[in-house]
Amino acid sequence: MFDSIHEECGVFGIRTPEKRRVASSAYYALYALQHRGQESCGIAVNNNGIIRCYSDVGLVPDVFNERILNELGEGTMALGHTRYSGSSARANCQPLVVRHVKGPMAIAHNGAISNASKLKRELELNGAIFHTTSDAELISYMITAARLTEPSIEQAIEKAMHSLEGAYSMVIMSPRKMIAVRDPNGFRPLCIGKKDDGTVIFASETCALNTLGAKWERDVEPGEIIVLDENGMHSITTHCNTKEHGLCVFEFVYFARPDSVVDGASVHAARMKAGELLWKEHPVEADVVIGVPDSGLDAALGLAHASGIPYGVGLIKNRYIGRTFIQPTQGEREDLVRIKLNVLGETIKDKRVIMVDDSIVRGTTSANIVKLLRAAGAKEVHMRISCPPFVNPCYFGTDIDSKDKLIACRLTIPEIAKQIGVDSLGYLSLEGVKQIAKTDKCKFCTGCFTGEYPIPTPEPALPDRYNFELPDLR
Amino acid sequence: MFDSIHEECGVFGIRTPEKRRVASSAYYALYALQHRGQESCGIAVNNNGIIRCYSDVGLVPDVFNERILNELGEGTMALGHTRYSGSSARANCQPLVVRHVKGPMAIAHNGAISNASKLKRELELNGAIFHTTSDAELISYMITAARLTEPSIEQAIEKAMHSLEGAYSMVIMSPRKMIAVRDPNGFRPLCIGKKDDGTVIFASETCALNTLGAKWERDVEPGEIIVLDENGMHSITTHCNTKEHGLCVFEFVYFARPDSVVDGASVHAARMKAGELLWKEHPVEADVVIGVPDSGLDAALGLAHASGIPYGVGLIKNRYIGRTFIQPTQGEREDLVRIKLNVLGETIKDKRVIMVDDSIVRGTTSANIVKLLRAAGAKEVHMRISCPPFVNPCYFGTDIDSKDKLIACRLTIPEIAKQIGVDSLGYLSLEGVKQIAKTDKCKFCTGCFTGEYPIPTPEPALPDRYNFELPDLR
Amino acid sequence: MFDSIHEECGVFGIRTPEKRRVASSAYYALYALQHRGQESCGIAVNNNGIIRCYSDVGLVPDVFNERILNELGEGTMALGHTRYSGSSARANCQPLVVRHVKGPMAIAHNGAISNASKLKRELELNGAIFHTTSDAELISYMITAARLTEPSIEQAIEKAMHSLEGAYSMVIMSPRKMIAVRDPNGFRPLCIGKKDDGTVIFASETCALNTLGAKWERDVEPGEIIVLDENGMHSITTHCNTKEHGLCVFEFVYFARPDSVVDGASVHAARMKAGELLWKEHPVEADVVIGVPDSGLDAALGLAHASGIPYGVGLIKNRYIGRTFIQPTQGEREDLVRIKLNVLGETIKDKRVIMVDDSIVRGTTSANIVKLLRAAGAKEVHMRISCPPFVNPCYFGTDIDSKDKLIACRLTIPEIAKQIGVDSLGYLSLEGVKQIAKTDKCKFCTGCFTGEYPIPTPEPALPDRYNFELPDLR
Amino acid sequence: MFDSIHEECGVFGIRTPEKRRVASSAYYALYALQHRGQESCGIAVNNNGIIRCYSDVGLVPDVFNERILNELGEGTMALGHTRYSGSSARANCQPLVVRHVKGPMAIAHNGAISNASKLKRELELNGAIFHTTSDAELISYMITAARLTEPSIEQAIEKAMHSLEGAYSMVIMSPRKMIAVRDPNGFRPLCIGKKDDGTVIFASETCALNTLGAKWERDVEPGEIIVLDENGMHSITTHCNTKEHGLCVFEFVYFARPDSVVDGASVHAARMKAGELLWKEHPVEADVVIGVPDSGLDAALGLAHASGIPYGVGLIKNRYIGRTFIQPTQGEREDLVRIKLNVLGETIKDKRVIMVDDSIVRGTTSANIVKLLRAAGAKEVHMRISCPPFVNPCYFGTDIDSKDKLIACRLTIPEIAKQIGVDSLGYLSLEGVKQIAKTDKCKFCTGCFTGEYPIPTPEPALPDRYNFELPDLR
Repeated sequence: MFDSIHEECGVFGIRTPEKRRVASSAYYALYALQHRGQESCGIAVNNNGIIRCYSDVGLVPDVFNERILNELGEGTMALGHTRYSGSSARANCQPLVVRHVKGPMAIAHNGAISNASKLKRELELNGAIFHTTSDAELISYMITAARLTEPSIEQAIEKAMHSLEGAYSMVIMSPRKMIAVRDPNGFRPLCIGKKDDGTVIFASETCALNTLGAKWERDVEPGEIIVLDENGMHSITTHCNTKEHGLCVFEFVYFARPDSVVDGASVHAARMKAGELLWKEHPVEADVVIGVPDSGLDAALGLAHASGIPYGVGLIKNRYIGRTFIQPTQGEREDLVRIKLNVLGETIKDKRVIMVDDSIVRGTTSANIVKLLRAAGAKEVHMRISCPPFVNPCYFGTDIDSKDKLIACRLTIPEIAKQIGVDSLGYLSLEGVKQIAKTDKCKFCTGCFTGEYPIPTPEPALPDRYNFELPDLR
Repeated sequence: MFDSIHEECGVFGIRTPEKRRVASSAYYALYALQHRGQESCGIAVNNNGIIRCYSDVGLVPDVFNERILNELGEGTMALGHTRYSGSSARANCQPLVVRHVKGPMAIAHNGAISNASKLKRELELNGAIFHTTSDAELISYMITAARLTEPSIEQAIEKAMHSLEGAYSMVIMSPRKMIAVRDPNGFRPLCIGKKDDGTVIFASETCALNTLGAKWERDVEPGEIIVLDENGMHSITTHCNTKEHGLCVFEFVYFARPDSVVDGASVHAARMKAGELLWKEHPVEADVVIGVPDSGLDAALGLAHASGIPYGVGLIKNRYIGRTFIQPTQGEREDLVRIKLNVLGETIKDKRVIMVDDSIVRGTTSANIVKLLRAAGAKEVHMRISCPPFVNPCYFGTDIDSKDKLIACRLTIPEIAKQIGVDSLGYLSLEGVKQIAKTDKCKFCTGCFTGEYPIPTPEPALPDRYNFELPDLR
Repeated sequence: MFDSIHEECGVFGIRTPEKRRVASSAYYALYALQHRGQESCGIAVNNNGIIRCYSDVGLVPDVFNERILNELGEGTMALGHTRYSGSSARANCQPLVVRHVKGPMAIAHNGAISNASKLKRELELNGAIFHTTSDAELISYMITAARLTEPSIEQAIEKAMHSLEGAYSMVIMSPRKMIAVRDPNGFRPLCIGKKDDGTVIFASETCALNTLGAKWERDVEPGEIIVLDENGMHSITTHCNTKEHGLCVFEFVYFARPDSVVDGASVHAARMKAGELLWKEHPVEADVVIGVPDSGLDAALGLAHASGIPYGVGLIKNRYIGRTFIQPTQGEREDLVRIKLNVLGETIKDKRVIMVDDSIVRGTTSANIVKLLRAAGAKEVHMRISCPPFVNPCYFGTDIDSKDKLIACRLTIPEIAKQIGVDSLGYLSLEGVKQIAKTDKCKFCTGCFTGEYPIPTPEPALPDRYNFELPDLR
Repeated sequence: MFDSIHEECGVFGIRTPEKRRVASSAYYALYALQHRGQESCGIAVNNNGIIRCYSDVGLVPDVFNERILNELGEGTMALGHTRYSGSSARANCQPLVVRHVKGPMAIAHNGAISNASKLKRELELNGAIFHTTSDAELISYMITAARLTEPSIEQAIEKAMHSLEGAYSMVIMSPRKMIAVRDPNGFRPLCIGKKDDGTVIFASETCALNTLGAKWERDVEPGEIIVLDENGMHSITTHCNTKEHGLCVFEFVYFARPDSVVDGASVHAARMKAGELLWKEHPVEADVVIGVPDSGLDAALGLAHASGIPYGVGLIKNRYIGRTFIQPTQGEREDLVRIKLNVLGETIKDKRVIMVDDSIVRGTTSANIVKLLRAAGAKEVHMRISCPPFVNPCYFGTDIDSKDKLIACRLTIPEIAKQIGVDSLGYLSLEGVKQIAKTDKCKFCTGCFTGEYPIPTPEPALPDRYNFELPDLR
C-alpha cells in the first residue's frame, strides 16, 4: 500500500530423526519468515517417501488451519515457503511438487534465475511443458533432465548448476533426502540450524531457527550443496568460490528481520551501524531522532546513540491494517498516511527532528509524513536514508518499481528534499552501506545503486506472440 | 452419500465470431453439465491468444462468483470442465493450461487413458515431470511431443492418438484454435452445436447446448478431430472407423441428463424404453409403479405406460441436501435414507408396488427404501432395475466400487432380493439394455456387465516405490 | 428468481425424555422444512433451563456446521425455524431468545399478526423497546406482560391470545416447558408427532416427522395451546372454536411438501385432485400432459389420470441453481428460463400439450416457457392453473407481489392467455379449489382469490416519522 | 494468548454538516480504536432519521468489507464501536439499535454499570425483556423509560443518570441528535474533536481524531452530557462534579494508545514518566534497558533516558500472529513465547539487562521471556513493572483474571522475582503511578491496586435459577 520495495521469498526445510508433526514446525517457521513473502505460502511434508503438499494465495494464517495441518500428517521432512510475487496466481505457489522418473521432488526457491528465458526455450524445444511462470518449475526441469544421467539427485543438482545463472537459495526434498542449495554468488541468505535431538533445519533467516528453538550452525556457503539423508549431512563444494560473492545489501537495510544474523552479521547491528554512519556523513543540529516504523527504527536508534541526540518515539503505526484494509477512495486519498501512521505530538512539538527511513521509493509517503510532522509542530525536519538512492533494476529477486516511478531516477537529491518538504536530506553513501555489516564470506551486490552487478544481467526476453496468464484471483 | 456409481467429467468449449463474455456462457453451460462431475470445475478463456484460467474444488456456484468471471474477462473462445474424481486435489482440476514450445494450450478431458502408466513412464525417461495425476497432463505431453515435429496442433493431436488408448472425449484450445477430439471407440459422448450468430459449441451433452440456445448440429464421431479456427470448421477423420465402437451404455441408463440426446438417441426415451422392456421381461401384477428419484423416474414412467398400471409419486427426495450436509453419526445412521427420501403414504398404502431404480450397488440403500415402503403400508414391493447387474470394473471413465462391495458380485439375484427385502427382483437383460437406444453410429460398451471390452484393458500398474499424493483438502 | 409467491416460515420443536443431541434432530428437521423458508434459519437448545441459540441468514447447510451443532450441545428440548422474509436482516432470524422476569424464553413463529402495529404502539407507550421488526418479538412482549400477573407461561400465552389477531402457528420454549400454539383461525398448519421412546415433536408439516422417524399423532387445533412438561402433554382449548376456521388453501396448492399431511389431508392427493378438477372444468383434446417442475407435477399427474391423456416429462429443471447463481445481465436476460428449465423435445415434438402449473404471478416466466415449448415443436399449448387467479393481498403470512405486478389484476383471462401465448388457459374455479382437500377441522381462507377474509384485515400502518432499518446484508 | 488484562470497549461518533459516506469515517476510526476491543465491532449510520447498523464478531477487517460499507450508505451521523468481552456472542455486538416510542435509538457504550443486576430486575418486573447480556441494552431501557415523561432525549438521559451507577462513556444517536455522555466519576475517557468543515467527532481516544484529520477540542467532562443537533453543540452539566473523579490509571499504563492524549495528558509521556519514576524507585547498575513489546517500550525508553543507561532493542515481536494462529499443543507448549517473541542476541549477550513491562498477570510469560534472555547470554536480568501489583477486581470495565490466577495475590514480590527468575524485581509504587500523568480534571481510580474504589462496588448478583446463554460461536 505504501510505496515500497519487495523481497521475493522465504524458504524453510526441516529433517527430524523420527516421524512427527513436522508440518506444525513448518507452520511456526513460516510465521517467522512471513515478512519475506506475503502473497502465498505452502508446506510439503514427506512421510516415508510420500510427499503431500498444500499451498495457496494468502498469509500463513489465511492459508493454514488445523484441519489442513492434520491432513498434511506426520513425517520426517518438511519444506515451507512464503512468497511475494507480482503475480498472485495460485499455480505459482510453492513448494512446487512434481513427479519425475525417480519419484516425487519438492522445491522451495528464493531468488531469480537470470537466464530463465533461454533455458525455458531450450527445454520447450525438447518437449517440456510449463504449468507456471515460476523459476522453481524451470529448476525442477533442469534437475530432472540431469537426473536421467546422474546417479543421485545431488549430482543432478550439481550438474544443473552449471547451466543456472542468477540468484537461487533453495531447499529441495526427494523421497529420502533434503538438500539445501545456494547459488555461487550467494545473492540470498540461507542458513543451517540444529536442535539437540538431531533435527536439522534450513531457513532463509536465523529468526526461523530461534522460533523453533534451534541453534544456528552456520550459513550455507555460496555455491554449496548440502545433503541431508539417513547418513547425516554432507556438503558438495565444487561450485563454491567459482564466482564473485554478491549478497544483496538490501537484506541488511530492509528485507531481513532485525533479529536475524545473515552470513555472520547481525541485521540489527547493521542498521544501528547505518545510523551511526549516516550521522557521520550528514550531521545536523537537532533535538530528537525518530525512525519511520518499522524498518527505520533501528537506524534511528543508531544515529541517536552516535550523535548523543535523544531517541524518541515520533510515529505510531497502526498494527491492524492488513491485506483486507479498504483504501480511501480518490477523494479521501490524502488521509491514507494519517490512517496508518500517527504523529506523537509530545515528541515532535517545537523540536528540530531527524527522521530516519530505509528508503525513498516514489516519495509520496515521505512527503505526507513530513506534512504530519510539520502540522504537529516540528520546527525542522531532517531526513536521513540508510542506503544510497536506488536507480537501477534488480535481476536477482527484488521487486523494485519501474524506473519512471523511482523518484531518485527523476530528481537530484536537493530536488527530492524540496519535493518531500524537508530542511535537509542525506542518503548513506555507497562506501557507507558497504561497511554496515562485516559478513564472513560475502561481498555485497550493490547493483541497484551502481548498475554494476556481479554477473551479466539477462537480455530482454523476446516478446511472445501468444502467452498464458495466471490470473490474479485474490 | 448414497451408494452409487460416478461419472468422471463433463467438457465444454465455445468459439464466438467476435469477442464477448464467453466465461459467462461457459458458466451457464457448466450448470447444465454439473451432474457429470461435482468435485471440481473450471473455465479457461482465450482472449486473442492469451489464455486465463480459473478452477477449483467445488460445485460451479462454490467456485465461481462475479468477481472471478469478470477477472477471466472477454474472449472469443472458452473451455469449461466439471470433474468427478476419487481425488479432490486442486492440482487435478481442469481445464489444464500449460505452455509448450508453440505457446499456451488448454485441455478439458472426459475419459480414462488405459495405457497411461506405460506412456507416463516413457515420458519420464525422456525428462518429463508431472504436476498432477490426471490424464489431461499426460495427453498434453503427448501432443506437445508430437508438436515438435508436426506442422500444426491438429496434426500433433492426430499423431498422439496413435499412442493413446482408452476413453477420451476432449476439447483443446490453442492460441488460435479450438479442437474437439473423440477416441476411436467413442466411449464418451461429445456433440456440436451452433447458434445463429455463428457461435460454435462443443459439449459432453446436448443439454448444455439448449441452455445456451444453440441448436444441436451433430455428434463428434468416434476417432474424429474437429478443428475450429478463423477459417471455420473442418474435420480430420483418419482415426474414424479404426476401432470397434463402444459408447458407454450407462450414459443412457444413469449418467446423462434425460433431456440430452446422445449420438442421436434421446436419453429420456431410452429410459422409458428400458422401463417398457423391464415390463416385458419381468411382468408382475401390481397397483402402482413408482421410481426412485431422480434417475429411476423415467424408467418407472415407461414401465407404467407399457403395463397400464398407474404411475405414482411414491418417494420424495429432499432437494436441499448437498455437499455440506452433516451425516448422522453411527448411532443415528439408520435415519439417513429417511432424511433424504420420504415415502408418500397416499400412493403406497395397501398397494402392490413396482419400484424402479437404475442400479443396485451395495444394496443398503435399496434395503432401507424397501423398509420405508413396508412401514408406509405397501402390501408387496417388486423391484425392477433398468440394466443388468454390473460385476466388472470399468477402465474407461466410470468410478465403480471395488468388487468386494458390489452386491451382485457376492450374491445371486434371489439372494439379493431376499437381502433387500423385496417380493420380486428383476434386472433388465443384456439383450434388453442393448436395445434401449438406437444410436447413429455407436455400438455399446457393456464391459461392466459382461467383462468383454472393446479394447484390451490395462495391465495393473507397477507399484511405485515412492509417490506423491495430492491431499484431499476440501 | 422466477416470479413466484413466498411462504413465510417453518417451525419445529422437540422434547426428549432424556438429554441428547437434540440440535442434530432439529438440524435434520430443518432440512425437511427448508422449502418453507430459505432466507434464514436457527436452532435453540434447552439444557436444564439454559437456552443456547444459533441462527443466521442463509440455508440450513450455510448456517450450520458440525462445530456449531457441537457448540449448541446437548439438551432435552430444541426449537428450530426456517424463515422467508422480505428483509434478510440477521436480527430477524429466529428462534428469538429473550430473558424476562421469569427467565429465558425462546419462540419460533410462522404467520403474521394483523394488529401488530397497534399492539407495538401500546407496548412502546409503556416503555418497550424493539430490536427487530419481527412479530416474534411482539408476541414475546405480549406473553411477558401477561406473565407478570399470570401464574404460568401457558396461562400467560392464553391471556396474550386475547389481544393477538392474525396468523400464528408457533412453538415456545421456557426453561422447563415446550408449548405449541395455533391461532383460532388456524391459518397455518402445525402438527404433533411422537416416537416410541417418548419423544414429542411439533412441526409445521408432517414431512419433518417422517424425517425423524416419528409418527403423526394429530394436528394442533385452531386456538389450541399444547403444553409439554415433565408431567407429559396437556391441552388448553379455551380459544378453540372461537373463530371461523381459515386454513390457507395455498398450503395445499403450493407451499407444503407433497408428502406432508395437513390437517388430515394429503397434500399430494390434494394436488392430484386439483388436476382432476381442472380437467373437468377445462377439458381439451391433447396428446400429452406435462407439469412445470416442481410444484405443477402432481396436478399434471392428476389431470393425466383423470383425462386418460398420457403423462409426460416435458420440462427438466436444473437442480444446481441456488442462491449464489449469477443471473444473466440485462443483455442476456432472455436466457434465464432456458438455463433453469430445459424442454424434453422427445415428449413435446408435434404434440398437443397440456401444461399444468400452480400459479401465474407476473406471467413472464410462463410466457418464456411457452416459447420454449413452441420452439421444441409443440403443436398446441394449453395451460391449466391449479387455483383461481389471485388478485388480493394476503395479511396472514404469504408474501405476494404488489397488485400492480400481478398479471391477473391487470388482465382478463383471455388477455393473459394471449400474453403468455397459449392456445387456451384454464384456472381452477373457487368452488374447485375448496374441494381439493377434505380436512378434519378447517375451512379454507381464500382471501387472496376473493378479498373476503375470516377476520378483519389490518388498517394501514401510520407512517413513522423516523424508523430504523435492518439492512439487507446477505 | 499471552496472559494479560483486557479493556472493554472503544466508542466513536461523528456528525457532519452534510450527508456523506460517514460509514467510511467510522471504519477508519475503528482501526484507530481496535486496540480497545478485538472481539467484535459495529457501525450504525443515520440517514435523515433512518438508522442502519451492521456489527459482528471479529476485528474491523474481518467484519467490514466494501459491500457492507456501501450497504450502510450515506448519512450525516454514524456511531462506531469496538468491543472486548468475555462473551463473543453476536447479540452483544454494538452499536445496539432499538426502536422505542420516539423512534430508533443507537448506543455505543464503554464501561460497566455496577448496579446493573438491581436495575435489570426492576425493569423485568415491569415487563421488560432482554435480548442480550450487555449493559447497553439496560441503558437503553433506562433512557426509554425516562423518555416517556421527559420532553427530550437529553433530558431522558439526564434522568436515567440518576439511577445508573458505575462506568459509562458512551455515544447515543437519535433520529436527529448525537449525544456523548460520561459518567460522573469519569472512569473511562471520552474526547471531542472538530474538523474545519464543521464535522464533530466523539471518540474514546484522541488517536481516532488524528486518523480522521480532526483537531482535539476538549474532553467530555465527568458527568457531562453533550448534545449535537442542527443547532450546534450544547452541554448539560448537572451531573458534573457530583462524584469523586476516578479515571482508570490503567488507561495510561496499558490500555490507551501512546499517541493518545487522555484528559489532557499524553499517554506516551505518562509511560516515559513511569519509566523515569521506576528508575528513581528501583535503581540498579546495568548495561542496557529493554522493553517488552509493545506496551513496555515507552517506559523502558523513559527509564533509559532517566538513568543514562543505553536503550536497546532486546525483543522482537512477531507481527503476523493474530486471532487464527494455531497454538502449539500441550507437548509443544514451551515454544509459544519463542514463536511470538525473539531475543535480539546482539543487544543482550554478556549484558546486565533491565527489562521493563507494564504488568505481571500470571507470571508464566515473564518467566519464559527471562529464560530466553538468559539463553541469549544475559548476565543479569532486572525486571521493572510500570505500575503496582494489582490484587483486586475491577468493577468498571477492565477484565482481570480471577484472584487465584493473579500471581501477586499468591506471592510476595521476592517470591515473584524468584519464580520468574530475575535478579531483581521492582514495581512502581502507588504514589508513583499517581504521578505519571497530570490530567486536567480527573483523579485516578486505583482500586485494582488498593481495593479502595470511588463508589460502592456491586453486591454479588443473585444466582439465577434459569438463564440464557449467548453461545461463543467464533
